[in-house]
Amino acid sequence: MKSYTIDFQPLGQRGECREKESLLDCAHRLGVGISSICGGRGTCNTCRVKVISGTLSEPTDSELEALSAQELGDGWRLACQAIPSSDCQIIVPPESMSTSQRICVEGLEATVPPEPAVIAYHIRLTAPSLSDQQADTNRLLEALNEQYQLPCRHIDINVLRSLSPQIRDWNWECQAAVRDDEVIAVSPWPSQQLGLAVDLGTTTIAGYLVDLSSGQTLAVEGTMNPQIDYGEDIISRINYVVKRPNKRAVLQKLVVDKLNGLAANLCSEVGVDVEAIVEMVVVGNTAMHHLLLGLPVKQLALTPFVAAAGMAIDIKARELGIKIAPGAYVHLPPVVTGFVGSDHAAVLLASNTHQVEGLTVFLDIGTNTEISLVNGQGITTTSCASGPAFEGGHIKHGMRAARGAIERLRITGDVIDFQTIDEAPPLGICGSGVVDAVAQLYLSGIIDDGGRLIDKHPRVRMTGNQAEFLLVDQTKQDGHPEIVLTQKDIRELQLAKAAIRTGIQLLLETNGFTEEQLGQVVIAGSFGSYLDLSSAVTIGLLPPLPLNCFRQVGNAAGMGAKLALISLAKREEGQAATFRSRYIELATDPDFKKIFIETGHLGRYWIKNNRREMLENG
Amino acid sequence: MKSYTIDFQPLGQRGECREKESLLDCAHRLGVGISSICGGRGTCNTCRVKVISGTLSEPTDSELEALSAQELGDGWRLACQAIPSSDCQIIVPPESMSTSQRICVEGLEATVPPEPAVIAYHIRLTAPSLSDQQADTNRLLEALNEQYQLPCRHIDINVLRSLSPQIRDWNWECQAAVRDDEVIAVSPWPSQQLGLAVDLGTTTIAGYLVDLSSGQTLAVEGTMNPQIDYGEDIISRINYVVKRPNKRAVLQKLVVDKLNGLAANLCSEVGVDVEAIVEMVVVGNTAMHHLLLGLPVKQLALTPFVAAAGMAIDIKARELGIKIAPGAYVHLPPVVTGFVGSDHAAVLLASNTHQVEGLTVFLDIGTNTEISLVNGQGITTTSCASGPAFEGGHIKHGMRAARGAIERLRITGDVIDFQTIDEAPPLGICGSGVVDAVAQLYLSGIIDDGGRLIDKHPRVRMTGNQAEFLLVDQTKQDGHPEIVLTQKDIRELQLAKAAIRTGIQLLLETNGFTEEQLGQVVIAGSFGSYLDLSSAVTIGLLPPLPLNCFRQVGNAAGMGAKLALISLAKREEGQAATFRSRYIELATDPDFKKIFIETGHLGRYWIKNNRREMLENG
Repeated sequence: MKSYTIDFQPLGQRGECREKESLLDCAHRLGVGISSICGGRGTCNTCRVKVISGTLSEPTDSELEALSAQELGDGWRLACQAIPSSDCQIIVPPESMSTSQRICVEGLEATVPPEPAVIAYHIRLTAPSLSDQQADTNRLLEALNEQYQLPCRHIDINVLRSLSPQIRDWNWECQAAVRDDEVIAVSPWPSQQLGLAVDLGTTTIAGYLVDLSSGQTLAVEGTMNPQIDYGEDIISRINYVVKRPNKRAVLQKLVVDKLNGLAANLCSEVGVDVEAIVEMVVVGNTAMHHLLLGLPVKQLALTPFVAAAGMAIDIKARELGIKIAPGAYVHLPPVVTGFVGSDHAAVLLASNTHQVEGLTVFLDIGTNTEISLVNGQGITTTSCASGPAFEGGHIKHGMRAARGAIERLRITGDVIDFQTIDEAPPLGICGSGVVDAVAQLYLSGIIDDGGRLIDKHPRVRMTGNQAEFLLVDQTKQDGHPEIVLTQKDIRELQLAKAAIRTGIQLLLETNGFTEEQLGQVVIAGSFGSYLDLSSAVTIGLLPPLPLNCFRQVGNAAGMGAKLALISLAKREEGQAATFRSRYIELATDPDFKKIFIETGHLGRYWIKNNRREMLENG
Repeated sequence: MKSYTIDFQPLGQRGECREKESLLDCAHRLGVGISSICGGRGTCNTCRVKVISGTLSEPTDSELEALSAQELGDGWRLACQAIPSSDCQIIVPPESMSTSQRICVEGLEATVPPEPAVIAYHIRLTAPSLSDQQADTNRLLEALNEQYQLPCRHIDINVLRSLSPQIRDWNWECQAAVRDDEVIAVSPWPSQQLGLAVDLGTTTIAGYLVDLSSGQTLAVEGTMNPQIDYGEDIISRINYVVKRPNKRAVLQKLVVDKLNGLAANLCSEVGVDVEAIVEMVVVGNTAMHHLLLGLPVKQLALTPFVAAAGMAIDIKARELGIKIAPGAYVHLPPVVTGFVGSDHAAVLLASNTHQVEGLTVFLDIGTNTEISLVNGQGITTTSCASGPAFEGGHIKHGMRAARGAIERLRITGDVIDFQTIDEAPPLGICGSGVVDAVAQLYLSGIIDDGGRLIDKHPRVRMTGNQAEFLLVDQTKQDGHPEIVLTQKDIRELQLAKAAIRTGIQLLLETNGFTEEQLGQVVIAGSFGSYLDLSSAVTIGLLPPLPLNCFRQVGNAAGMGAKLALISLAKREEGQAATFRSRYIELATDPDFKKIFIETGHLGRYWIKNNRREMLENG
């Protein structure tokens, strides 16, 4: 039997594909989670993958229908239809992934010329003698100056503590890692110089191990933020710490330990020591940023919601307990304000906002949603409290995007098709599943545009005095529970999405624009990457722009962190943009309430003059 | 009965002086140790003190004989003769001190305009509001820039960790301590800004608490270096660490704990918290410098005797475990070479070497003696291993300069007069006592100029096959032991003093000078301060210059540290001088042996053409 090797990127999973086996079947057999709502029938368009190399079967009719000529030309295929006829390299984009621990680590890969903060120099020294008793450090600094015209003034204390025996062992030859005017590490020549970029989210943490000399990403890993036990969202976590000031250090240590584990895992994957990491960049929302640094957070949660530290911070990794090269720094780009962190600034950086043509909105959806409006004139940013519904919170059978969560859902007549993460028996419903469910119920006429469940539908029933829709029957065989969507769940979603839509609208209005003038909406982050755009427009979460106006950029915050790691120019560009950006507080806007009420409605509509203007369904 | 209050400085001891009580009697009653070899008879001239304020009895005949008109005019008196007739403030100079723990903390007090590394600024901020959500840090940095044109870029992490609650408590007003472009501390306005200068010696540690805005010394304290348990001299301490590398941290912690205790004592004396200390300067010999920083010391003890770090080092105090202001730095001026530390550089700084006219030698006598030759052309430095004899080491009844040590000795005919530290029963003899003893024995003809004990003297006896001179008989009444000076002790002293005299001579020779051309010899350090200059010349330790060519400057290293603390200009001047100074290794000099043999001889002589040219005694 013939077989081919398939390389699934960015997961890095490889395996044999059997003759006539589709990419989807091969992936599932190998444990590579690719979405497939229709079960491989070629109708749901959720298993899109991109072929980088290798030959496959000709596109099927389903594919010709689902993909444009341009997309086919670019290598896009439906995994359920395409059958390899050679070894292949395949990219599974975030929106097609359905992995067990679904943490979005991938995003737009922007390439920049490497120009890192830490640069390695090859140094040869003359050994000392009785007629040349210069100190070891002075010898090193002089060599850097003579051989590279580098007027370094400082050497990290840990380098000082190890240099003398090492340089003798290495026979007076070494590699010196220089940052600004400081030697932060020495190692034998030649040594690899690595960097670690981290997107530190409230729920998840994504880490990227990068070769600083080439800018190449060597390994990526996502993990959970362990602080989650102390509050699922930012506000509850802040409140926890404010009430127990001595726990600030506990929460800090938790995340530091996790970062150390992340660094160790990434390095062991590549087969290097963590001390090869000579620079680290961490982006995050302001609360996570503050908790990592051990800064006070009380004032973040009290009006006027002010960050303790809003500047760029360079701190020795050891001062935070982070175990990488002993002299390395952690760089934390500036946060924008109490509710707009450096993660959002990183999204903007990764998205090349200074090259944006036309009017673009950048969205980072979470319990707190950051929104920026960018055009040639500049950047205006706001944030809104969109609550936990998009992460499955405050939803009766809601859950995080983890194994067993319903993430996609379609209603065709009486049939409810759904897909769970990891294709496990359904345990609950996550954010993207709730959006799908409400959109499908609305399109099926089971919910009206005010969000009310029409109680004459056979699956709508009353529990107590609340209506609910039965999404999944209890099945004794699989042992999974009944899963419902309640009237209250729908209200939660409406509040969440109204907050975001209102934010977009007010940001436009404040700058003198309307929704129809929008050229592009860029959606970053984990939830935004798995979100069905069509459903999002259907429920009025997003304005009814043509779908090709939307871009889901995955973990753009992580990508931004990586850019700031690889390139000092990018770091400065991001910093300048942060300081230049204008922050607008929405809660005080007189139109806020009016628009919030309008945008609570479901359906496709524009907001004009603080009123919604409904479009036909479809 | 009438009484007056006497304030003894720099010890800071105060007490009542009874009617007709001499300053000496008063001092001794109050426990203030003032030297007095003749027992208050006005003949030994060792109890010189300086009157700052108050009236006293007219000078006695003894005083008129012992002190020049100029000295009397300057306020100098003999404490045993002068009787207060009002409240007085008295300075007891180091050479007249005889305290129980005799650590030399005082020295030449040079005054410079205060220009410290850390400067305090009074800041008023506008409170944030919903229309001004700037981060607390950015608000502070902007205020520094707007109010003082200070473009600060960094804020210490500990300031970041406390600023937000504090600035609210202080109603948006504070004092910001700025160092370079970093805010290292904030405090309520106004707060005192203190600095701590430390001379970290192998045996003793001297600390000076300074008000940074005025440059005034508020308190001084001397203490023992606790590392002494791990080796009395540098080489044995280095060897200890080299053989047990894991003890490097132990030795470091010992000295850090001691420095923390020193800081705490000094601050409690002045009634402030240690966090008021915002800058610290530490000078020391290269080994003490390295052990404090935790640097490797092995290469210091192996040819070619190279320092691990020879540059100026600025390190956060907390990185060394030093507890002062949490964001404060410790500045360590550069060391010259493996055997010439920043303490010697500080001596040169305190002595204003750039203003030196004529040819001057600077001496820092210890187990290792540093010697610099300074003239208009520059600084040439060397060091020599002078061994432990000057600290009482390798001497049969030798001891450190502590309670009960014979520190002064005179032989008049058959009478041996001596003085012990603290006037306690004699327990042994310290370095200055050994020098006195050898000089007196030589002058009495009991030792010849080769150092041999003439065995016909009644107090010379043989023990085993070694001659020894009985200095102090056993006295059952006082319970003190017999104290002798052996032939071997004399040889030890000869080796020690020959090393120093050879160093001076070779330094002169290398630069094309002779001893007779010397304009001045400046002697720094503890031993050098208590040394009887006349005895030192008598035994050929020093060249036979007129006594007014010698200056005993006390703890000039501590003074230099203080200058570097108070004034950035001085700090840079010292650093520049260190980098400019030329180090000469003497051991490799072809004339070394010849001169060393000549300078082993006792007596007053010049060295000319590698031979000694004896002068008459007296």
